[in-house]
Amino acid sequence: MSPGYPIVDIHTHMYPPSYIKLLASRTTVPYIHQPTESPGADPRLIILASDDDPGRPKSARGRPVDSTYSSFDEKRRFMSAHGITCSVISLANPWLDFLDPESALATAQEINDDLDKACGENNAQASSSSSSDSKLKLYAFGCLPLSAPLKDIVTEIHRLKTLPQVKGVIMGTTGLGSGLDDPKLEEVYSALAATHTLVFVHPHYGLPDSAFGGPETIAKSGHVLPLALGFPLETTIAMARMYLAGVFDRHPDLQFLLAHSGGTLPFLAGRIESCVAHEREFIANGGHRQGPKRSIWDVLHTNIYLDAVIYGQPGLKAAIEAAGSVDRVMFGTDHPFFPPLGDDQDSKWLSVESNKTAIDGCLAQDEDAKRKILGGNAVRVLGLEL
Amino acid sequence: MSPGYPIVDIHTHMYPPSYIKLLASRTTVPYIHQPTESPGADPRLIILASDDDPGRPKSARGRPVDSTYSSFDEKRRFMSAHGITCSVISLANPWLDFLDPESALATAQEINDDLDKACGENNAQASSSSSSDSKLKLYAFGCLPLSAPLKDIVTEIHRLKTLPQVKGVIMGTTGLGSGLDDPKLEEVYSALAATHTLVFVHPHYGLPDSAFGGPETIAKSGHVLPLALGFPLETTIAMARMYLAGVFDRHPDLQFLLAHSGGTLPFLAGRIESCVAHEREFIANGGHRQGPKRSIWDVLHTNIYLDAVIYGQPGLKAAIEAAGSVDRVMFGTDHPFFPPLGDDQDSKWLSVESNKTAIDGCLAQDEDAKRKILGGNAVRVLGLEL
Repeated sequence: MSPGYPIVDIHTHMYPPSYIKLLASRTTVPYIHQPTESPGADPRLIILASDDDPGRPKSARGRPVDSTYSSFDEKRRFMSAHGITCSVISLANPWLDFLDPESALATAQEINDDLDKACGENNAQASSSSSSDSKLKLYAFGCLPLSAPLKDIVTEIHRLKTLPQVKGVIMGTTGLGSGLDDPKLEEVYSALAATHTLVFVHPHYGLPDSAFGGPETIAKSGHVLPLALGFPLETTIAMARMYLAGVFDRHPDLQFLLAHSGGTLPFLAGRIESCVAHEREFIANGGHRQGPKRSIWDVLHTNIYLDAVIYGQPGLKAAIEAAGSVDRVMFGTDHPFFPPLGDDQDSKWLSVESNKTAIDGCLAQDEDAKRKILGGNAVRVLGLEL
Repeated sequence: MSPGYPIVDIHTHMYPPSYIKLLASRTTVPYIHQPTESPGADPRLIILASDDDPGRPKSARGRPVDSTYSSFDEKRRFMSAHGITCSVISLANPWLDFLDPESALATAQEINDDLDKACGENNAQASSSSSSDSKLKLYAFGCLPLSAPLKDIVTEIHRLKTLPQVKGVIMGTTGLGSGLDDPKLEEVYSALAATHTLVFVHPHYGLPDSAFGGPETIAKSGHVLPLALGFPLETTIAMARMYLAGVFDRHPDLQFLLAHSGGTLPFLAGRIESCVAHEREFIANGGHRQGPKRSIWDVLHTNIYLDAVIYGQPGLKAAIEAAGSVDRVMFGTDHPFFPPLGDDQDSKWLSVESNKTAIDGCLAQDEDAKRKILGGNAVRVLGLEL
């Protein structure tokens, strides 16, 4: 099954036990609800405001959260079934955005330590094992206590560099609460750049319901509109705001990895560039043209990596083209989300196979490019030891 | 300059005199403001709610509306300068969405007659002229009285087929007010399909300000966020809602042309398809799986044409790939929007050249494909006589 080179999944989520416990202790979004009315049923995970429909019993809100969310054995089983040799796991949304400022740093440290320890134990076993199924490697993206005072965030950025299995951080699109273009983030960006920390940006909040015609319109197709469109459009807006605010001008060393192939940034980069060039607000003013100084293409080619979680060839081609090279796109699965809906839980997941098929379709003739996207880029960029 | 084949611009706007008069008679969005405080200054066009900033004097709101918006001579001058041999002009947003129901049909008829007559006079002259600059052809997309009673809308759809220069209709994304997935539109879709009327879907309303972090965040980069992102995301959401509601299942003969290369639909089609396949709400229910019956790729390949107004090679490649063939993508300019900001108004427009450069970059080796996108497809699909 294995092509003879590392297959690295850089977009794969887990809720370690300490995080599950935290969510289960809450009763407002995000929270985990244990249905007492139907013993034996899986707990329900309610992570989006749109999941928390008061018109439904709690036992029918959100999605069932089974052991695929928290079990390292399940993660390895999924990896084996799909020929994945290494996973860089990350907390799923909404990370730690909801913590009160006082406890945020301690909670982040506990969860990051948990992740590092679990990956370390796995990797020690893998190194000494002879069976190929036991040789699977695990690394992690850490999470930041973004609701904590700035100094605590910076402290954790530096501390994460001392955790050997942690290869970057994952964060949402709201930063300290008002977006990634928040001037208050300057200190955080300086720390991220100085420590060469890769930032995996992932959506969570989506768009206001009214953008989709309101809750009733949304409900007609379940989670399709918020997930299929809200998520990638959120990422696109967040990154565009960051770009327009000049963050990449001031921090040319920042390294970002964008979920879902950048939302829609690869497709819209040309339109953003054109709108910036034609914006009257940016016209030369006292000798200085306002607005971002660098071309968005330059930022894409220098500061941004894209995952290959786009489920189709047109999108993947645009992602590779916008990234400027096959060196900046990385395979991912979004596991454990989008499981097969039928009974055949052990078959290969459609959500994974469609991304693999797109890679094969785009790069059929180019084994070297495939090797890079499927794993080589992640090994190089994250410094993985495989 | 001319490559020896027709160059057709299918995305080019005009406000005919009757429409300018209508907007100038209004004081709420959309409206035209004639600055009385600075005589000689161009009137201001305020078409977006975000343009109508009460913190600014009316003379500084929106954008200057000069003769490029209403003059057929200016349109021809622009065409000559860019080697365009035929333009299919359309009213710019927000079309007639704001009319009161009683007068909407009469106003639509007047404006559509105006457009047909102006194009007819131009084309009669062009046919009898020997100079190449006088041979430029003009056709039009009509507009529908969407605020009128349904029977009036259907009446105008049928009447437009009797206007020889009108080759389809342009409309926004809200339909009768609540979106293109509105069940009340069934009768309209039946009429559009029965008359083989091409529908050019164009954004106007964008996204709620809160999607961009609020008005203050938006204002920092002028119109960039609403125009670069709000517009294409609006189109994407509207078409996804239509698709999810099964409109293309019930009306397999509908023909749509999507502005700005489909918003972001080509990039996100795979994700939409994947989310539909994994949506629990759509699971088989009494033997019938809910949700759209046709694949979104099938709809893209059968019911949808895309313009090539995407300002970059990654986006254009995705558009061609998602459309399934170079036969379904058509050159456009978005004139008179995005004019050069400097003094050099007579040079070639960057907004046009970047789209032409993308076409050249994608299809440098394929003259036949270039010929199709630059004009051949429009001639074939719209039945233009050139």
